[in-house]
Amino acid sequence: MTKIGCPYGTHRVIEPQGVLPQPAWKIDNTMEIYDNELLIEVDTLNIDAASFTQIKKDAQNDIAVMERMMLDIVEKRGKHHNPITGSGGMLMGTVSKIGSAWTGKTPVKVGDRIATLVSLSLTPLKIRKIRKIYIEKEQVEVDALAILFSSGIYAVLPSDMSPSLALAILDVAGAPAQTAHLVRPGQNVLIIGGGGKSGMLCLYEAKKRAGVTGRVIGIGSSKGSCDRMRHLGYADEVLQVDATDPLQVMKAVSEVTNGQMVDVTINCVNIPNTEMASIMATKDRGTVYFFSMATSFTGAALGAEGIGKDVTMLVGNGYCRNHAIVALETVRESPILWQVFHELYA
Amino acid sequence: MTKIGCPYGTHRVIEPQGVLPQPAWKIDNTMEIYDNELLIEVDTLNIDAASFTQIKKDAQNDIAVMERMMLDIVEKRGKHHNPITGSGGMLMGTVSKIGSAWTGKTPVKVGDRIATLVSLSLTPLKIRKIRKIYIEKEQVEVDALAILFSSGIYAVLPSDMSPSLALAILDVAGAPAQTAHLVRPGQNVLIIGGGGKSGMLCLYEAKKRAGVTGRVIGIGSSKGSCDRMRHLGYADEVLQVDATDPLQVMKAVSEVTNGQMVDVTINCVNIPNTEMASIMATKDRGTVYFFSMATSFTGAALGAEGIGKDVTMLVGNGYCRNHAIVALETVRESPILWQVFHELYA
Ligand SMILES: NC(=O)c1ccc[n+]([C@@H]2O[C@H](COP(=O)([O-])OP(=O)(O)OC[C@H]3O[C@@H](n4cnc5c(N)ncnc54)[C@H](OP(=O)(O)O)[C@@H]3O)[C@@H](O)[C@H]2O)c1
Ligand SMILES: NC(=O)c1ccc[n+]([C@@H]2O[C@H](COP(=O)([O-])OP(=O)(O)OC[C@H]3O[C@@H](n4cnc5c(N)ncnc54)[C@H](OP(=O)(O)O)[C@@H]3O)[C@@H](O)[C@H]2O)c1
Repeated sequence: MTKIGCPYGTHRVIEPQGVLPQPAWKIDNTMEIYDNELLIEVDTLNIDAASFTQIKKDAQNDIAVMERMMLDIVEKRGKHHNPITGSGGMLMGTVSKIGSAWTGKTPVKVGDRIATLVSLSLTPLKIRKIRKIYIEKEQVEVDALAILFSSGIYAVLPSDMSPSLALAILDVAGAPAQTAHLVRPGQNVLIIGGGGKSGMLCLYEAKKRAGVTGRVIGIGSSKGSCDRMRHLGYADEVLQVDATDPLQVMKAVSEVTNGQMVDVTINCVNIPNTEMASIMATKDRGTVYFFSMATSFTGAALGAEGIGKDVTMLVGNGYCRNHAIVALETVRESPILWQVFHELYA
Repeated sequence: MTKIGCPYGTHRVIEPQGVLPQPAWKIDNTMEIYDNELLIEVDTLNIDAASFTQIKKDAQNDIAVMERMMLDIVEKRGKHHNPITGSGGMLMGTVSKIGSAWTGKTPVKVGDRIATLVSLSLTPLKIRKIRKIYIEKEQVEVDALAILFSSGIYAVLPSDMSPSLALAILDVAGAPAQTAHLVRPGQNVLIIGGGGKSGMLCLYEAKKRAGVTGRVIGIGSSKGSCDRMRHLGYADEVLQVDATDPLQVMKAVSEVTNGQMVDVTINCVNIPNTEMASIMATKDRGTVYFFSMATSFTGAALGAEGIGKDVTMLVGNGYCRNHAIVALETVRESPILWQVFHELYA
């Protein structure tokens, strides 16, 4: 093959024409690469939680039925893009071929073990065989091939941790890297959902940036996640409050900041209706970073307007330059984060 | 009355308890003010377009039926919060009483003609009589009373323009004020939907900030809106492209910027599925400001990640300090904007 495709993969869109591979219904999963593509021998699919749950439920936990459903999705769409939930997941595998015109963002060589950081919902995939479905880990062992476009991102899997630990960290890699950009020395910072996967990484990074003159506050709704934050030791204050109750959150944050509120709020929850708590805990002219995918755009925009609050609100871009390196290093830097992440995700 | 309520109006929430007035199903519209509230003699309701259209359709254009539906909403909920569309609108009226503990953001006196800049979906309202429904303007002349909480925002109506022109400008007041914050001299700026109401204000403000060394590009899908941009004269380039086609937009913007792309994109469209065009037209490390309420949070977040694009994406907060003054002044400053706005909205 000597064909060079579009860096965004539009050359593989079958229907409807004119859209990008992600919104496309069906893409071409012929496993002959274009000159600017990368071929991956896939061994593991890490199915998105929403998608996996839907398939499991529909199959009534029958592994054989789940297998058929997954093969069927890829057969019909050329990618593991669940038509019900709209979501994908990630994959792990080994680079087996690199097109001569490949211009990806980082160096890679044949034989590297990588994880793709773009969604399965846009990745051409051909499954030869499903070897095993791991219900607990929401992972599937496969014998498959996949293609990465040159606009796609991936990370070389580190050798000092298990693949499932690395995947867990890479899944939320954007959060600590963005925290590093946003937080400055001496600031008050609030991490809502600070005891979760992305939240813990943000807590660490926020304290590192805000420093001894800054104040980092973590919020969780359960005793469990609050205890975890206390155990980590990076939060100056841990508050057990329900983030769907904006007035309670505002009151609690006001108390521990002497009414000053916070300069930066980072929202890392996994549930809806926490926009107002994030906005109200933040100072006028402060910043709210919505990493949570359960954020409602209109909820945030009209909510801030409704109370005349001049805050800068950021959409949590899953990608930022070097985010994978930053996230993996964060866990390596802190022995206690390393220990907690090992216990929870290895 | 000597009671001081919550600045956010939670003291008026009837059901469900514990939420803010906007998400509440029913609020207390007793027209005796708390000490930190403002009482307004309302003469005009400016019903949100989505809400007005729904009511009109449901009533099969029968004015008497529309009237009954509107009274019914306020009767049931204590506010003009359309249960089908979830939206509200704005109101115009005269300040008739100011609570002794009122601490609003700007000075106001009894007798001032004001427009509220918070949604009707959170404003306690009591309609005594509907005088006239203006189908074309989506406005309703009423004899009514309303209450503004001290966290609520409003603008004193200017004397040099008609109320309907002022309302049109105030409706999108956040856009030019944010543009002023975002754009710096010498930058390339893209306004998607630059021929619309908010878009025209942003075009003017962007050119003013980017200056002679900057480059302002306007995009519209119809010849009409593109001609309007050319007539205004503030765009260095006007491109007629469909913003739902990201590759076409990217190509067109690349051509007029010699492949540099833009530092700041401001999205002012009124239709969905334009996130990718906004992201792909912007330089790496550039900024996208989504003023459009049709923006999908996940569309933006996963879209940027899917192509590994490190852009800062901002949620269009409808409020920013002094936004009403900035927006009204924008139109006064430019004779040609003044003329076009007069023709379209006066
Ligand atoms: N932007 C992106 O690219 C991207 C990428 C990956 C993930 N995400 C999103 O990031 C979010 C977090 O992911 P994650 O993996 O870090 O989730 P996670 O590990 O499940 O953590 C969620 C945290 O939220 C807390 N929480 C839940 N309900 C709460 C409430 N009512 N009040 C206060 N805290 C509450 C939980 O603590 P308690 O149990 O104590 O309440 C938990 O610590 C998700 O919404 C996910 O979709 C975004
Ligand atoms: N954040 C806030 O607080 C706030 C407040 C008010 C309004 N808004 C939102 O702001 C947006 C704009 O409001 P507006 O009053 O300025 O709207 P508008 O006057 O109707 O203008 C919309 C513009 O979008 C253009 N457009 C539509 N489809 C397009 C396409 N496919 N490609 C390129 N351009 C396209 C239109 O031009 P053509 O007809 O030529 O396509 C038009 O010029 C709305 O989504 C509204 O919800 C937000």
